[in-house]
Amino acid sequence: MKIQAYAAKGQGTEFIPFEYDPGELGPEEVEIQVEACGICHSDLSVWKNEWGNAEYPFVGGHEIAGVVSAVGSQVRHVQEGQRVGLGWFARSCMGCEHCLAGDHNLCVERKDTIIGRYGGFADRVRCHWAWAIPLPDAIDIRTAGPLFCGGVTVFNPIIQNAVRPTDRVGVVGIGGLGHMALQFLDRWGCDVTAFTSSPGKAEEARKFGADRVVSSRDDTELEEIAGSLDFILVTANAALHWDLYIQALRPKGKLHIVGAVLEPIPLNVFSLLMEQKSISATPLGSPATMRTMLDFCARHHIAPQIEDFPMSSINEAFARLEDGKARYRIVLTRDD
Amino acid sequence: MKIQAYAAKGQGTEFIPFEYDPGELGPEEVEIQVEACGICHSDLSVWKNEWGNAEYPFVGGHEIAGVVSAVGSQVRHVQEGQRVGLGWFARSCMGCEHCLAGDHNLCVERKDTIIGRYGGFADRVRCHWAWAIPLPDAIDIRTAGPLFCGGVTVFNPIIQNAVRPTDRVGVVGIGGLGHMALQFLDRWGCDVTAFTSSPGKAEEARKFGADRVVSSRDDTELEEIAGSLDFILVTANAALHWDLYIQALRPKGKLHIVGAVLEPIPLNVFSLLMEQKSISATPLGSPATMRTMLDFCARHHIAPQIEDFPMSSINEAFARLEDGKARYRIVLTRDD
Repeated sequence: MKIQAYAAKGQGTEFIPFEYDPGELGPEEVEIQVEACGICHSDLSVWKNEWGNAEYPFVGGHEIAGVVSAVGSQVRHVQEGQRVGLGWFARSCMGCEHCLAGDHNLCVERKDTIIGRYGGFADRVRCHWAWAIPLPDAIDIRTAGPLFCGGVTVFNPIIQNAVRPTDRVGVVGIGGLGHMALQFLDRWGCDVTAFTSSPGKAEEARKFGADRVVSSRDDTELEEIAGSLDFILVTANAALHWDLYIQALRPKGKLHIVGAVLEPIPLNVFSLLMEQKSISATPLGSPATMRTMLDFCARHHIAPQIEDFPMSSINEAFARLEDGKARYRIVLTRDD
Repeated sequence: MKIQAYAAKGQGTEFIPFEYDPGELGPEEVEIQVEACGICHSDLSVWKNEWGNAEYPFVGGHEIAGVVSAVGSQVRHVQEGQRVGLGWFARSCMGCEHCLAGDHNLCVERKDTIIGRYGGFADRVRCHWAWAIPLPDAIDIRTAGPLFCGGVTVFNPIIQNAVRPTDRVGVVGIGGLGHMALQFLDRWGCDVTAFTSSPGKAEEARKFGADRVVSSRDDTELEEIAGSLDFILVTANAALHWDLYIQALRPKGKLHIVGAVLEPIPLNVFSLLMEQKSISATPLGSPATMRTMLDFCARHHIAPQIEDFPMSSINEAFARLEDGKARYRIVLTRDD
C-alpha cells in the first residue's frame, strides 16, 4: 500500500501531496502509522538545503509519534499496535563498536530519517526496530513527537556530562529545545538560569523551571554572573559572546553546545585553562538514553509545549516556524 | 639568615646574585634548602614579562627539589630533614570550596611561586606546607624537580579525563612536558602516538614510550590517522591545524590542552558535535594528584630526562633553553 506524504519538489518550495511505494517491509523494519509529527528547525534547514545534503522530493518530519502498523520478521522488542516514537535517526548498523557499546547515535553507518529517505510528514513511516522507541503509558501521543529529536538532544548532554542535581546550570536559547531543557534540568534538581534574547519569554521560562532569567545579549548581565555556573547548555545556533559564557562558568565548568552554530568560535585557551573548563557537543542520543528520558518524562510530567496543526496545513505551519512564532514546538497531527 | 638567590633586575636582563631577607617563618610555612631546580618555559615567559604579570627583581624557579630546613609552628605532615618538591603553586587558602574539595590548584587565592614572590633559583625557598610534597625514597632528588610543574601539568589531565589503559592516546609536542607525558601514558598502559615537528626526536620519543611518531606539521600524515585517538594531549604552545587534530579523535574523543596557546583557536562546532568530541584544559594539579604522580613514578621508574648545570651557570642555562636545545629539561643544581 502506497504511503501518502507531503513533499517539497525543490529547495524551499511548497509542500504538496506526494505518494510513494515503500516496497516490501524489510525483516528488521517497523512501519509506524503517524499520529503526530513535530517540525524541528532542522526540517527547515534541510528543506532549504542549508547543509548541502538535501534530496528532492523532500519529505521531512523526524519527531514522530505513532502506532506500529507492521513489523518485519526479525523485529525484536516492538509489536504491532504498540505506541512508539521515532526521531532523527532511523537506522544503525547494530554491529559496529559504537552500536555494540550502546552508542547507536554514533554508529558509523547511521541513517538520518529525512536525508536520503522519506520522513514523518506522511501517514506512515518506516525505521529499524531499534529506533522505534516504545512510549510509556503516561506519555501523551499528541505531544510526544518533539521528545524524539529536540527532547533527546537536550536530555543526552545531561547524561553524557553527568550533570548532578546539586549543579547550577544554564540554558541558552528558550525555543523548541530550550523549553524542554528547562523542564529536564529543573526536575533533575538543579538551580536553573535561562538565557534568552526575547524578554517576552521570561515569564514562561520561569514556568518551565528557570529560577532566573538573564538576557543572552546583555554583556553587563552576563558579567554579573561570572564564575557561577557548573554547566551551560547552548541550544541557540547564533554566534554569542562566547568569552562571557565561558567566564560565567565556575571552575571545572562545562559549556556544552547542541545548536548548529555555523560560525567558528574564537576559543581562547587561557579562558579554559586556568580554571579547568571545557567545551563539548553531542548529537541526539541513543535508544537507551531515549528510553531513560521517556521514563523520566512520565515520572515528572514533562512534555513539550506545542501548537498543533492538521498535517494538511503543513505550509502554514512551516511559515509560522520560519517567522519564529512557534511557542514552543509545532506538531502536525493526522488528518482524520 | 638571608637567602642567596639569582635575580633579573628587569625584563629579560641577566641573572645576577641577589640576596634578600625572607623575614620570620610563618606558622604554616616550610623552608626548603634547594638541591636542584628545573627551568620551565614559563620561567622564560615571566622573565620576559610575556604574560604582563612579572615583578622585578625576578627570582624564577618553580620546579624545586630539596630538603626541609625549617618548619613553622602549625606545619602539618612535613618535617625538618624531609625531602620534598615544590612546583608552580606555593600557597592556597585551604578554606575555599575548591581547597576543601581537594582542588587546591583551583583555589581562588592561590599564589604562584615566582609571581609576587621569590622562587627556587636560590639556596632556599619558602611555601605553604600543603605545597611541599614529600618525595618517595625511590625518587632521585637530582631529577625530581621537573615533576612538580611540567610533570604534574601532563599527569593531571590523565586523572581529570579518566584516561583508561585501553585508550589510544596522542601527545603533541615532545619537549619538557611531552617527554614526561609519553612516559606516563606508556606506563598507564595506553597505545601512544607522539606528534613532533622535529624529526630528530622520533627515536627518543619511542624510547620514552611512543608506539609511533607522526609529524605534527604534515597534514597528510594527520589525515591518515583520522578517527583513531581517544585522547590527545597538546603540550605545544604553537598554533596547530586544530581541525586535523579534532578529526584525529575517535567518537567521544577529547582534545586536552596544557600548552599556553596564545592565538585563539577557530573552533568549528560541527567538528565536535557529530561525534561527541570535546576540548578541555587544565592548570597544574593538586597536592593529592602530585602525591599520586610521585607514587606512580616510583613504581614505574619514571623520571625527567635532564641536563644539569650548576646554579651559578644560570645565564648559560637560560640561553640553551631559549635556543630550544634542552633535551629535555634543564635542571640547576646547588653549587657546593
